[in-house]
Amino acid sequence: MTDYDTVSADVESEEEIPEDHPRYQDLLTRHRIEEGVEKGITHLQGMHAEGRGSAFDYLLGEETIPSADAAERAAAAHLLLADHPVLSINGNVAALVPGEMAALADVTGADLEVNLFNRTPERIEAIADHLREHDATDVKGLEADARIPNLDHQRAKVDADGIYDADVVLVPLEDGDRAEALDEMGKTEIVIDLNPLSRSPQVADVPIVDNIIRAVPNITAHARDLADADEDTLREIVADFDRQAALEEAEERIRSGDL
Amino acid sequence: MTDYDTVSADVESEEEIPEDHPRYQDLLTRHRIEEGVEKGITHLQGMHAEGRGSAFDYLLGEETIPSADAAERAAAAHLLLADHPVLSINGNVAALVPGEMAALADVTGADLEVNLFNRTPERIEAIADHLREHDATDVKGLEADARIPNLDHQRAKVDADGIYDADVVLVPLEDGDRAEALDEMGKTEIVIDLNPLSRSPQVADVPIVDNIIRAVPNITAHARDLADADEDTLREIVADFDRQAALEEAEERIRSGDL
Repeated sequence: MTDYDTVSADVESEEEIPEDHPRYQDLLTRHRIEEGVEKGITHLQGMHAEGRGSAFDYLLGEETIPSADAAERAAAAHLLLADHPVLSINGNVAALVPGEMAALADVTGADLEVNLFNRTPERIEAIADHLREHDATDVKGLEADARIPNLDHQRAKVDADGIYDADVVLVPLEDGDRAEALDEMGKTEIVIDLNPLSRSPQVADVPIVDNIIRAVPNITAHARDLADADEDTLREIVADFDRQAALEEAEERIRSGDL
Repeated sequence: MTDYDTVSADVESEEEIPEDHPRYQDLLTRHRIEEGVEKGITHLQGMHAEGRGSAFDYLLGEETIPSADAAERAAAAHLLLADHPVLSINGNVAALVPGEMAALADVTGADLEVNLFNRTPERIEAIADHLREHDATDVKGLEADARIPNLDHQRAKVDADGIYDADVVLVPLEDGDRAEALDEMGKTEIVIDLNPLSRSPQVADVPIVDNIIRAVPNITAHARDLADADEDTLREIVADFDRQAALEEAEERIRSGDL
């Protein structure tokens, strides 16, 4: 028995959603995505993708499982070790965690770059503005003066001094083609995705099977915790992370969790 | 490995979606819902609900499993035996299966009644028009001159000579509160829902765990097949249907299916 399907996210502002509501995270997520669609930040398909993700999160128990926490710590270590880390932002990411991504960029010295599946100048601008309203200081992705090889979509467009040049990229909620193409460029790829068997986490060096609204603040917390760690410590965290075990633990949790 | 996340439903009309595409049903569903939002038929939250459903359908293998087929046959028998069967239509149902619901109403002699979670006169009218464009001859739900007891939402509004009076109701994609309230009124309730443990199928006399775009045409096919059956045969089909076994088979399939 569940009240999964009985709540409405029909509120004017997110402050109206009671924090002690048993479905708080789901309501908050839906509200932010809906607002994103209304602001022109999120494509209508993003609402569908978010719904799909919410079913997996529900099966996962709507919590950060231990292997996801380990992945988030490894992600923090990768970002801190990187020469040029970049955090990729699409419409759903911008709607769901704009301030959280800005904070992570700040703590790790990463660039933020807007990259869209359905790219229009209006959406790019709306997202860049939305990120700036949430304290992002420098937003890339507007130049789009380089291309990811082997990808003929609009998604191939990147900034030459952004994702194209990055050694470590965080690509949350990414489609499989783009994740594969970035992997083939030899980048260290960190993916956040709630389905452990979809292609993006499968090709990622660090697959994070967690809800983005929990994952990003937790990567930031780990990055703050590791801010003064030496390089050897960071490399050990990276080496100790077992991506295959993380994917398997997530799948096991989804299969055995409460429906 | 899956290409689940790599396809786009970004087409102008559903004829553009190739029928032999491995994700045809999912693309068709997404396209119809998106069009529903654009036409003012479907609430934005419907896009989210549809995405959630698509994850369960994916786990189910995107096919009508044997217990769902049995449920659809029992549903047909119930509708044929009823004194006053009514098919309830919300925004997602109208967007996904308008013609299919009209055909089922025709074959079983059921009424169609519009009932919305987010009720506005404009949406009610848009949905009634949309159903009429798809050959529905009589659409109820516009009077809203009766109330379902124990339900304080807009959803309590029904027609006195429609759902209020019905002995058998088909309520696809229904929220749990409303399904429970209808159950408490003593109606025979047929529910279509892709999550076997959500409240609506749990309270249903006939829970159909299947995608609505497969379920409704299949109920119609069974109703056509049973059109000349005598009452004893229909009552036997109803009595033989095991709702608990159907729910368990669906859950088992979801847990063991390909992620």
